[in-house]
Amino acid sequence: MKKLINDPQAVVTETVRGFARAHAGHVVLVEDPIHLHRADAPVSGKVGIVSGGGSGHEPLHAGFVGYGMLDAAVPGPVFTSPTPDPIVAATKAVDGGAGVLHIVKNYTGDVLNFETAAELAGMEDIRVESVVVDDDVAVQDSLYTAGRRGVAGTVVVEKCAGAAAERGDDLDAVAAVARHVNEVTRSMGLALSSGTVPHAGEPSFTLADDEVELGIGIHGEPGRERIAMAPADELVDRVLEPILTDLDAPAGSKLLLLVNGMGGTPLSELYIVYRRAAEVLSDRGYDVARSLVGDYVTSLEMQGFSLTVTVLDDELTALWDAPVETPALRWGR
Amino acid sequence: MKKLINDPQAVVTETVRGFARAHAGHVVLVEDPIHLHRADAPVSGKVGIVSGGGSGHEPLHAGFVGYGMLDAAVPGPVFTSPTPDPIVAATKAVDGGAGVLHIVKNYTGDVLNFETAAELAGMEDIRVESVVVDDDVAVQDSLYTAGRRGVAGTVVVEKCAGAAAERGDDLDAVAAVARHVNEVTRSMGLALSSGTVPHAGEPSFTLADDEVELGIGIHGEPGRERIAMAPADELVDRVLEPILTDLDAPAGSKLLLLVNGMGGTPLSELYIVYRRAAEVLSDRGYDVARSLVGDYVTSLEMQGFSLTVTVLDDELTALWDAPVETPALRWGR
Repeated sequence: MKKLINDPQAVVTETVRGFARAHAGHVVLVEDPIHLHRADAPVSGKVGIVSGGGSGHEPLHAGFVGYGMLDAAVPGPVFTSPTPDPIVAATKAVDGGAGVLHIVKNYTGDVLNFETAAELAGMEDIRVESVVVDDDVAVQDSLYTAGRRGVAGTVVVEKCAGAAAERGDDLDAVAAVARHVNEVTRSMGLALSSGTVPHAGEPSFTLADDEVELGIGIHGEPGRERIAMAPADELVDRVLEPILTDLDAPAGSKLLLLVNGMGGTPLSELYIVYRRAAEVLSDRGYDVARSLVGDYVTSLEMQGFSLTVTVLDDELTALWDAPVETPALRWGR
Repeated sequence: MKKLINDPQAVVTETVRGFARAHAGHVVLVEDPIHLHRADAPVSGKVGIVSGGGSGHEPLHAGFVGYGMLDAAVPGPVFTSPTPDPIVAATKAVDGGAGVLHIVKNYTGDVLNFETAAELAGMEDIRVESVVVDDDVAVQDSLYTAGRRGVAGTVVVEKCAGAAAERGDDLDAVAAVARHVNEVTRSMGLALSSGTVPHAGEPSFTLADDEVELGIGIHGEPGRERIAMAPADELVDRVLEPILTDLDAPAGSKLLLLVNGMGGTPLSELYIVYRRAAEVLSDRGYDVARSLVGDYVTSLEMQGFSLTVTVLDDELTALWDAPVETPALRWGR
């Protein structure tokens, strides 16, 4: 294992210290208990939005802290949920009097710890709503999940909910936007190689030179099946088909297409993947109205990609297009 | 070799097709001869800026086409200079009557082909100035270079020159900005692993599990020496020291620090690297006034990083801060 780290136990701390220093003025790091919030938090009268989960998926979640998206992020240890304490601290830090939305990826530990944190925050008179993201169509239950996993669709949920909060929606309305995005979003991914958890020191799984894990989870959890390596276009088709079947959107629908890199895949390959996915969607009569290509929800240095498709209506399109200023996602106001 | 490609010979074409489709409305792809330009090119009265070079370094250069940066990019085959023809075509496409600046990384093929293209464009009455970027302090001559190589400092040159052109500077002034940035910019990198050129099918070089190539080139060219793998902080120090020695900036200088990923390194590790580099610079009495962390000038899926340091004066700070809207670098107007 060759990694640019010092101490496997210090990876998260050193990452967030570097992150906070690189984005000083925009993001503030609190180390005990560990969370990061917008420099201007709390924003008075605005619904606060908190997300978090195990580290190792950077830029998720801290990279999305800023105007128009998250108010705070709570990074757990690598691939491990944060405990309730830092979630409560983040919730308190961003409560501007209008309540706080928790956006939680559907993993057993995250769901449990965010629930406990919401209860504790409630005892301090902060109203909390929670939305669980479960966009991954690959498997029904999984290593760390009852029900579907939350993967790259989380970015779309966080972006649209953040825009709704920024325009002044109340807590129920922001939560409704987040739930709506989750309902019209589906994802699936595949891996060509495994990442290595720093404190484990060994790859999480092994694939032969001609093997691909179809439906991979973002912690290296098994997917649907191991398939033979194939040209990119075939692999894209294998990932896109279950998404479209499950989404069951009528032809003519406006779609957002997110091609997400898993951490170790060159951007050039992601554009080759995007090319095929966009072509297939157009051929099926869909309108690929919005696109995003890059590393957004990663799994350490895993090679692979995921596709996320969201059905856009005018409301969601406006929320997606609304200004955002975060370290990892940014377009102008 | 597992790559998300179809045909090794079609990698560049399929990449730019996906890129142009994902960024339709902002960037236009011309396939014969191959180049990409701003959708609104030529901008009348503005100096046009063209860069280019071998592919495999994405998002460089096409990712920097847009308002406030490049007017056109010319992608060659992987790690191979484009021929003069597409450079001439790009030059003509972006000439708004104020002349065109060529920004060229210092590799023998690129320098030669851009020179020829400049002569050919001159015969069609387009005034062309050329600036050669040679920011890499690792080695004096190299596999593909007489003199120092051009690496990630190219991003800083392109950003500042683009801002100068956008504010209305004439061709001589834009070229002077580009030369000035190059003069106050130094870079060096290292690799933990090699990328694999698609049509070669084998890694460009091999490193043992405990080896690092210090001073790596962005085509996998040898650097200064192979050193033993070490904690991230030690590796950062080994890269930063030659940069600072060569730059010889007085204490108190304002600096831009760019931590650039080589393609296969997780963002978390780049922030760990950033943390150390920023600490060392502060300890030496420098003011790290601007920062950029991410994959900007890559070498396929190579694991590793480079550091780039630019000495900022008020002029360069303003040019760096000026609005930019490109697929890979974006901040608001």
